[in-house]
Amino acid sequence: MYAVPELKPCHSFSRIAVLTSGGDAPGMNAAVRAVVRTAIARGIDCFGVHRGYSGLVDGDIRPMTSRSVKNIIQRGGTILKSDRCLEFKEQAIRWQAYETLTEMGIEALVVIGGDGSLAGARLFAKETGMPVIGLPGTIDNDIPASDDTIGFDTAVNTALDAIDRIRDTADSHGRVFLVEVMGRNSGHIASEVGIAGGADFVVLPETEVRSDTFQELSTERTRFEEKSALIIVAEGENEQRIHQIAGDLKQQGHEPRICILGHTQRGGSPTGHDRVLASGMGAIAVEFLLAGYGCHMVGVRSGAFFACPLDEIHLAHPESAAEQSFDSLWRLLK
Amino acid sequence: MYAVPELKPCHSFSRIAVLTSGGDAPGMNAAVRAVVRTAIARGIDCFGVHRGYSGLVDGDIRPMTSRSVKNIIQRGGTILKSDRCLEFKEQAIRWQAYETLTEMGIEALVVIGGDGSLAGARLFAKETGMPVIGLPGTIDNDIPASDDTIGFDTAVNTALDAIDRIRDTADSHGRVFLVEVMGRNSGHIASEVGIAGGADFVVLPETEVRSDTFQELSTERTRFEEKSALIIVAEGENEQRIHQIAGDLKQQGHEPRICILGHTQRGGSPTGHDRVLASGMGAIAVEFLLAGYGCHMVGVRSGAFFACPLDEIHLAHPESAAEQSFDSLWRLLK
Amino acid sequence: MYAVPELKPCHSFSRIAVLTSGGDAPGMNAAVRAVVRTAIARGIDCFGVHRGYSGLVDGDIRPMTSRSVKNIIQRGGTILKSDRCLEFKEQAIRWQAYETLTEMGIEALVVIGGDGSLAGARLFAKETGMPVIGLPGTIDNDIPASDDTIGFDTAVNTALDAIDRIRDTADSHGRVFLVEVMGRNSGHIASEVGIAGGADFVVLPETEVRSDTFQELSTERTRFEEKSALIIVAEGENEQRIHQIAGDLKQQGHEPRICILGHTQRGGSPTGHDRVLASGMGAIAVEFLLAGYGCHMVGVRSGAFFACPLDEIHLAHPESAAEQSFDSLWRLLK
Amino acid sequence: MYAVPELKPCHSFSRIAVLTSGGDAPGMNAAVRAVVRTAIARGIDCFGVHRGYSGLVDGDIRPMTSRSVKNIIQRGGTILKSDRCLEFKEQAIRWQAYETLTEMGIEALVVIGGDGSLAGARLFAKETGMPVIGLPGTIDNDIPASDDTIGFDTAVNTALDAIDRIRDTADSHGRVFLVEVMGRNSGHIASEVGIAGGADFVVLPETEVRSDTFQELSTERTRFEEKSALIIVAEGENEQRIHQIAGDLKQQGHEPRICILGHTQRGGSPTGHDRVLASGMGAIAVEFLLAGYGCHMVGVRSGAFFACPLDEIHLAHPESAAEQSFDSLWRLLK
Repeated sequence: MYAVPELKPCHSFSRIAVLTSGGDAPGMNAAVRAVVRTAIARGIDCFGVHRGYSGLVDGDIRPMTSRSVKNIIQRGGTILKSDRCLEFKEQAIRWQAYETLTEMGIEALVVIGGDGSLAGARLFAKETGMPVIGLPGTIDNDIPASDDTIGFDTAVNTALDAIDRIRDTADSHGRVFLVEVMGRNSGHIASEVGIAGGADFVVLPETEVRSDTFQELSTERTRFEEKSALIIVAEGENEQRIHQIAGDLKQQGHEPRICILGHTQRGGSPTGHDRVLASGMGAIAVEFLLAGYGCHMVGVRSGAFFACPLDEIHLAHPESAAEQSFDSLWRLLK
Repeated sequence: MYAVPELKPCHSFSRIAVLTSGGDAPGMNAAVRAVVRTAIARGIDCFGVHRGYSGLVDGDIRPMTSRSVKNIIQRGGTILKSDRCLEFKEQAIRWQAYETLTEMGIEALVVIGGDGSLAGARLFAKETGMPVIGLPGTIDNDIPASDDTIGFDTAVNTALDAIDRIRDTADSHGRVFLVEVMGRNSGHIASEVGIAGGADFVVLPETEVRSDTFQELSTERTRFEEKSALIIVAEGENEQRIHQIAGDLKQQGHEPRICILGHTQRGGSPTGHDRVLASGMGAIAVEFLLAGYGCHMVGVRSGAFFACPLDEIHLAHPESAAEQSFDSLWRLLK
Repeated sequence: MYAVPELKPCHSFSRIAVLTSGGDAPGMNAAVRAVVRTAIARGIDCFGVHRGYSGLVDGDIRPMTSRSVKNIIQRGGTILKSDRCLEFKEQAIRWQAYETLTEMGIEALVVIGGDGSLAGARLFAKETGMPVIGLPGTIDNDIPASDDTIGFDTAVNTALDAIDRIRDTADSHGRVFLVEVMGRNSGHIASEVGIAGGADFVVLPETEVRSDTFQELSTERTRFEEKSALIIVAEGENEQRIHQIAGDLKQQGHEPRICILGHTQRGGSPTGHDRVLASGMGAIAVEFLLAGYGCHMVGVRSGAFFACPLDEIHLAHPESAAEQSFDSLWRLLK
Repeated sequence: MYAVPELKPCHSFSRIAVLTSGGDAPGMNAAVRAVVRTAIARGIDCFGVHRGYSGLVDGDIRPMTSRSVKNIIQRGGTILKSDRCLEFKEQAIRWQAYETLTEMGIEALVVIGGDGSLAGARLFAKETGMPVIGLPGTIDNDIPASDDTIGFDTAVNTALDAIDRIRDTADSHGRVFLVEVMGRNSGHIASEVGIAGGADFVVLPETEVRSDTFQELSTERTRFEEKSALIIVAEGENEQRIHQIAGDLKQQGHEPRICILGHTQRGGSPTGHDRVLASGMGAIAVEFLLAGYGCHMVGVRSGAFFACPLDEIHLAHPESAAEQSFDSLWRLLK
């Protein structure tokens, strides 16, 4: 459980709204529930915007009660639905959304989503002056300013579950498996899964694969058990990468199998960690609004929640050195 | 629990061996354990052949004790390792294997594997006269004479777990998902998963996909929730099939996503059903040997275990009409 | 997938209702969904009665649509809620329920529940003449006429998951664990879990525990690994039984630990098997009504669904010899 | 992934040993694997002591290789076995253990266990001067100096899985459930599970239960859905506590059900978080030895690993305010 900052409420609100945007992530429902319940506990009416920014544009906004978030903390996906709303990149559309909200008497907004969604939230807050708090909701853990994002822990465990299954076959057949996990620009899932899955190699987006990268792999029939290997490959931007690696391995005498874990990593009941994280972030989002923050994200740093300006979510801080941690651990454990 | 046939022991053996062959299937370890323990209970020494028929050829055969099968009933894969041994298609190699066994004083063999492995078992038994009992160990459930095979129930539940996750995203985004499950010649996993997963469509290997197959799917923005759909596609022999269907759906205005569940379906801890099935089949294999059977598979029909001649494992019996069951249920439930 | 009987529809209905009664069982939602969808496919309006027979008495009955059963096939519990309604044992109350139904134009009823609920269904059908089809929904698998009930497979897998965890500790500490599973009058869960969990002993409700029952258990410090043991105990009618056994074991020099799995066995997402079973039974319930059955349960025998008169659900048929199967397997595998 | 401290190696070792002691915790195997592999990477021979301190006394110590820790990262329990060794409280026995180790040429020890085990490690290091590094391995997370312990995250997720199941029944029947989770002196599991499980009440060891504690719970039949409630109770030191609460609730007109999760919380495959935590701690333990630490525990504080003197493991530091976090979150979310 991350440490919770002490905050002094100095503002008041009658009505706020909450939405989920971009790719869904396990724990989004727990976050929505926390926003709604904390708002109610603070005497604020809370509304749910459906389908992300699209619902702001369409006015698909409905009142939420304690009851409407009952029994959702354990569910994957998002009861508010989500969407990638390209229109919201236009300033005119953002003003239209602002009008929809103000017409309904809504004075502040909580946005749960990844970096694209938070970028939209930042523009909206800056231009319209409406207070907005963002929550990092993305399985990729690719918001540099925050050590943790809603959904990451669940995605890692889902990928691991698949990898534990694949290892059964790899070991039984003395075979090399290439397993692609999510992470287009980010190797966080691959790193965590690589260590936790006891992988033999991890190929991050920035890893340079060379002809001798996998030379330790045995192809000898007589060393059956050492023949099996698990290679974790981050999705990266090049869709063909895993197939190229497979091709290289074939040339070296292996019979690699490819598994692309894909969208299964997005769904499922959130882990305890993600439920507590999302619940904490949702509650703190409302507290941040009451404390006068209005263009910030709830982030995690050095084991504590903190208010990160939406302008700075792309700035990593040097102490939260997940990459270095991976490098130093990996060297020792392999 | 399937009914167990009454059998009269009329033979005796000093030593038997057991092997796992072909693709691994969850429950193989439970079957090996049952063969070993039943053999010991009947006063027979039991040996484990490593890496399937390859181990017969190489002489990679080791004595098994009650202890060597302790704590494996819940493990996926196979502690005996497995292999697809192409050499075993040659008669000379089969005779070589026979000699290896007889030199070690082994008088009978239990083979756990799919149809290819059982075909090898049949030839070996016919040619050499050594008693062989086969167990259907394959996640595909594609042995026509038997209603059930070791690993099928686990594979269905593993695929379902993935599908339950995918549905979270499909529902949250109003999106069409195409999910490929295993089954090259067999639609059993796809049928079971289609019904149990509440799928909207199931494409079996034999299904003819036409231009109007998916016409019920809504593309209207206003009917967001009805836009989501799950389409289960059996692997089939044409690797491009799922991509072709995705192409068709794109032309019709959908944005389908593809998930290929792949090898994750092979591994993992077996379900209770598969452990009981495998334990029963393993025990009965030894009982069949003692009762004088010698070129048979332990099959399941009408809720009971039975001895199926290895010559007849490709003959479906009309009562076990899984296909008809699927067709009639699917029509009603969709 | 069980074989589906061929049925000729000879009746028609405008409106039917469905309810869940007694202890909840995983798969009840899948069964409700199948009843509703099949009714709709057959042009019948379907109503959901809330809280079992209590809702019949109170008139808590609501129309169901295809949409109201969307996305429930994978959920544990019952969306219709359940209750043990003692009042329904009175004839006057049953007639009151009949009037409620006929006032709403409802012509037939599907009841999903255990033996108490099915006994109520039988009386209701006999007295009022309204056609009623029962579905065996109970984790205990204690309806003698049927080889399988909705929820049993899930409960077995849930118990096994707990037992696999407990074995980790038992093995690590060389310790004896007594694990109580559900089953007041029925040893089905205990038998299945005992075999699938690789237990050392299984105490069924009818097992006579004697002073020498557990004498094989080693207490020697030097045989650390053989000291660990798993003993599965069916709940039975005597709540103190497991504590008495623990007391006996203490006197023999063991330090047994007790785990009572309890209500966790009731809930959770149903397995693929239970979803397919429940979907099949729900669909067939409607087909049975249309074929003129009106005081029957959908049962499973010899691998096929069949219509079992509600008068005969307590009669076991000799072929479905789960008990004998357990006895003969257990002797060989232990 | 916690930040890894930079360390300068200034010592060297030829042989070290590792043991697991006290109650087993998921992730102990991952920690053992990391100690062994890091030692090998640093050119040190590593030995495994079986059955905790008992194995030190008995001399049950075996060489470990990269191979002997293959395929264990995902397994619950401990391959080294564990024991609570009361003898080790005697100084003479600790000197005997020291002699056993020095005779084998072992120069340092890594101890994985809870506070009792770490207290033994501290005495051993102080008295004999042999360098010892402790790892906090306990599901209870009750080492005040460290924010996290090996096994805690897994135990929380296991308890949550059970609670998600129980909620299905609680909701279906409108019933109150009391669920006891582990934690004799510590409410960490109960707090985390209470928030993540969406519980209605959490009773920590220090919570004072009064006559009006549960007065919000409805007993009205007409408010069926609000009747259900989940109350999480930490085990505490008073075994009867949960039964007393159940008695109170009965007097107030409820029909509470009791579930005691017990030992199932100890076992099972560790989560990704616990595998990474344990792998990191295991690797760093060896690095700490090489950097000259010799009476320390690897702890976690403010998102980073640190060297905590074994003398200070009972001192909480004010920033890691899990209790305050729980209190402030709980007030808002309930």
